[in-house]
Amino acid sequence: MTASDWAGFFADEASLDREAYLFLDYYLECSGDPELAAAHFCSEQSTAQWRRVGSDEDLRPRFGARVVDLQILDGARPEFSYGVGSGSDAPVTACRLRIAHPHGNFGPRLPNLLSAICGEGTFFSPGAPIVKLLDIEFPESYLACFQGPQFGVAGLRERLQVHDRPIFFGVIKPNIGLPPEAFSELGHESWLGGLDIAKDDEMLADTDWCPLDRRAELLGEARRRAEAATGVPKIYLANITDEVDRLVELHDRAVERGANALLINAMPTGLSAVRMLRKHAQVPLMAHFPFIAPFARLERFGVHTRVFTKLQRLAGYDVIIMPGFGPRMHMTDDEVRACATACLEPMGPIKPSLPVPGGSDWAGTLRPLYEKLGTVDFGFVPGRGVFGHPMGPRAGAASIRQAWEAIVAGETLEERAKRHPELSAAIAAFGKPAHGQAASPQPSEQASEPDAAGGDS
Amino acid sequence: MTASDWAGFFADEASLDREAYLFLDYYLECSGDPELAAAHFCSEQSTAQWRRVGSDEDLRPRFGARVVDLQILDGARPEFSYGVGSGSDAPVTACRLRIAHPHGNFGPRLPNLLSAICGEGTFFSPGAPIVKLLDIEFPESYLACFQGPQFGVAGLRERLQVHDRPIFFGVIKPNIGLPPEAFSELGHESWLGGLDIAKDDEMLADTDWCPLDRRAELLGEARRRAEAATGVPKIYLANITDEVDRLVELHDRAVERGANALLINAMPTGLSAVRMLRKHAQVPLMAHFPFIAPFARLERFGVHTRVFTKLQRLAGYDVIIMPGFGPRMHMTDDEVRACATACLEPMGPIKPSLPVPGGSDWAGTLRPLYEKLGTVDFGFVPGRGVFGHPMGPRAGAASIRQAWEAIVAGETLEERAKRHPELSAAIAAFGKPAHGQAASPQPSEQASEPDAAGGDS
Repeated sequence: MTASDWAGFFADEASLDREAYLFLDYYLECSGDPELAAAHFCSEQSTAQWRRVGSDEDLRPRFGARVVDLQILDGARPEFSYGVGSGSDAPVTACRLRIAHPHGNFGPRLPNLLSAICGEGTFFSPGAPIVKLLDIEFPESYLACFQGPQFGVAGLRERLQVHDRPIFFGVIKPNIGLPPEAFSELGHESWLGGLDIAKDDEMLADTDWCPLDRRAELLGEARRRAEAATGVPKIYLANITDEVDRLVELHDRAVERGANALLINAMPTGLSAVRMLRKHAQVPLMAHFPFIAPFARLERFGVHTRVFTKLQRLAGYDVIIMPGFGPRMHMTDDEVRACATACLEPMGPIKPSLPVPGGSDWAGTLRPLYEKLGTVDFGFVPGRGVFGHPMGPRAGAASIRQAWEAIVAGETLEERAKRHPELSAAIAAFGKPAHGQAASPQPSEQASEPDAAGGDS
Repeated sequence: MTASDWAGFFADEASLDREAYLFLDYYLECSGDPELAAAHFCSEQSTAQWRRVGSDEDLRPRFGARVVDLQILDGARPEFSYGVGSGSDAPVTACRLRIAHPHGNFGPRLPNLLSAICGEGTFFSPGAPIVKLLDIEFPESYLACFQGPQFGVAGLRERLQVHDRPIFFGVIKPNIGLPPEAFSELGHESWLGGLDIAKDDEMLADTDWCPLDRRAELLGEARRRAEAATGVPKIYLANITDEVDRLVELHDRAVERGANALLINAMPTGLSAVRMLRKHAQVPLMAHFPFIAPFARLERFGVHTRVFTKLQRLAGYDVIIMPGFGPRMHMTDDEVRACATACLEPMGPIKPSLPVPGGSDWAGTLRPLYEKLGTVDFGFVPGRGVFGHPMGPRAGAASIRQAWEAIVAGETLEERAKRHPELSAAIAAFGKPAHGQAASPQPSEQASEPDAAGGDS
């Protein structure tokens, strides 16, 4: 590429038709001239060869991605991050790159979008082996091609008749191995104790030892009994993660039998499959986060979780379960907040999704989570914090509600616990919260004494 | 977890029913006792809470993943790799872990398999933030639930009537921006020059400026003309990467009009969607590799490309295009060979897939690729090396065939080039191969002089 060729991959953002472009922010480490690297990066993402041999055509004006901003963060790094080499001795520059990518190159299709923004062009651009896609902005015209969440936060609150507090989820545990009968009894207990939503673990599938049909039937019955007993709506969130060509059928079978929300693991199943299911869905769709950390955990390589949160919302998830706060989940506080914001912020015609930051939660982690998010628009999703509670899941669920009541009443957890044995037992089993610093059902000898149920999280 | 609890997550491999387990090799960095970390790792992957409160049941014997080997690679690392912290000051141990995972926990379903082997349990196991899934082995009974490739290497060779050499692919370029008429003319020229398979770029979708219907129609016609002119079968590989619920329809439309192989980007579309399409497919299915590097490039974090190669084969791809040799693609030679082996090695009833290691190829990279792989069972996939050739794509394709003839004849590229202007022009345009060290159409001022067509790769 000659110097005059580069110019075709740069543009003034103000001069562009904003509706025609996606705007992408990348972190990039490159060797050699960063402007050349940025031009290559755009070329590789879009029209890698922009004219035929012997022709003077130029496909760049319409089809070329463009650098609209290039900031040098560090102009003289000794080497690339993470032990990655370039085969060159040129000095390494770390930069932040903002790109306008013409979405007409591929259209409003999730697999093609992913291929464009985190595909070969992005991760094999010459001289730039270290890349992280940090953020994506969509124009209204692109968003308008997607349905997004069917119910959204408001629709979910309406279904549950819960308007002024977080939504209380619980992952039924033991997560793997119980037959439907025992499993449904645990769900029933947790609803009676105060959970809004009892959910299958993201690992629980339609297996011979716990068939989805029977599970949905029994949990559906248990849910209706719990609704009758408590006088409030409840949700059984059935995991229908399975091969793509079974999703619609499993949706129908689960919903017909009594599941009233469905979990589909986003990345393992594929966002496009979720978008397909969304067209058919009669109940809220909820995402779990397997297989995102492998490309999102490191600070300077891969794809930021915020991008995937936006894409999950676009695909039509009403609820997005995500790694939450605390050292266990290896997310910075800012990253968790960025994902929660990506769920809730305005996004053209796309409804908000409910963010559910999770990981080793129990009654004592509710206040710090609430304070860090600064809103009641979130879900709280303990597993062992409810189902490993020494007094059982009904008490475990009650301890969560008591923790919320303490927040509303302006009391400490300990003050509240004096009047509530469930909360007191949770504190004894799971930690000693103090000064807003939450302990959690983490693996340590202290935390698992007394070990009421096998397991740690 | 108490010390006596750990034991439930360890087993002697010889004592296990091999047909009941997947065997998984992981690299792991953990803080604290590595045996405890390994036990947690298995627990998190399987039955994270293995009994109900108040019960003495134990779900581990049937449902627990088991450590069958634990090797300490480095017992006293000062910190975790890649700047990841644990929130603890305990010393860090690097280990290699082999796990037997009971596949009955979820069954022969790709989304559930992915959730189990690289999901939350794997990447959020306590005290072990640095993980790489290195390899996976399937028992015959599990493999028998999958169709795998319909044609495989032998079937593809049969279709092309090519039995004793690599298969010659070419990515039609300009990849993005040409209308179907101009695009098909380039494909036609490349077939006449000697390509077996002319392919759409992985970024080319069903767009208004190049609709798949019209593209398949014109390329189908061009293919039949080229077959008539050359007397040998040719393949037009149409990219139908699109939303999952369009795949079957696009398959039918493309094949009906003249495409006789189909490209589906594996990760962006989802392996399960490919498995679905495989049930319906009448032509070979071919994979491209966008979105694998973000979780596979780093040595000690993520998922090894070999694992994804195996999963693509299992999903039913007849051909797997993968990052190839050379610094541009950031793969070690061993890693490329491991992926090629994963395509070709015995895999129970699953046919082999053709490996196509690619990246900046031209006539001069054919010999080193062949020598490094040590077999003719591979595909060779230049882009600009054919379509950016200064004499045009017919000459570009001819230069590839001439490079192969040089290998067969035991000549150097330069010797052969004396009698073949196409090869000579390729050498002048793309590099100066010498001593088996290939140059390539890389971005550098030398390599792009003379720059016959805009672009670099």
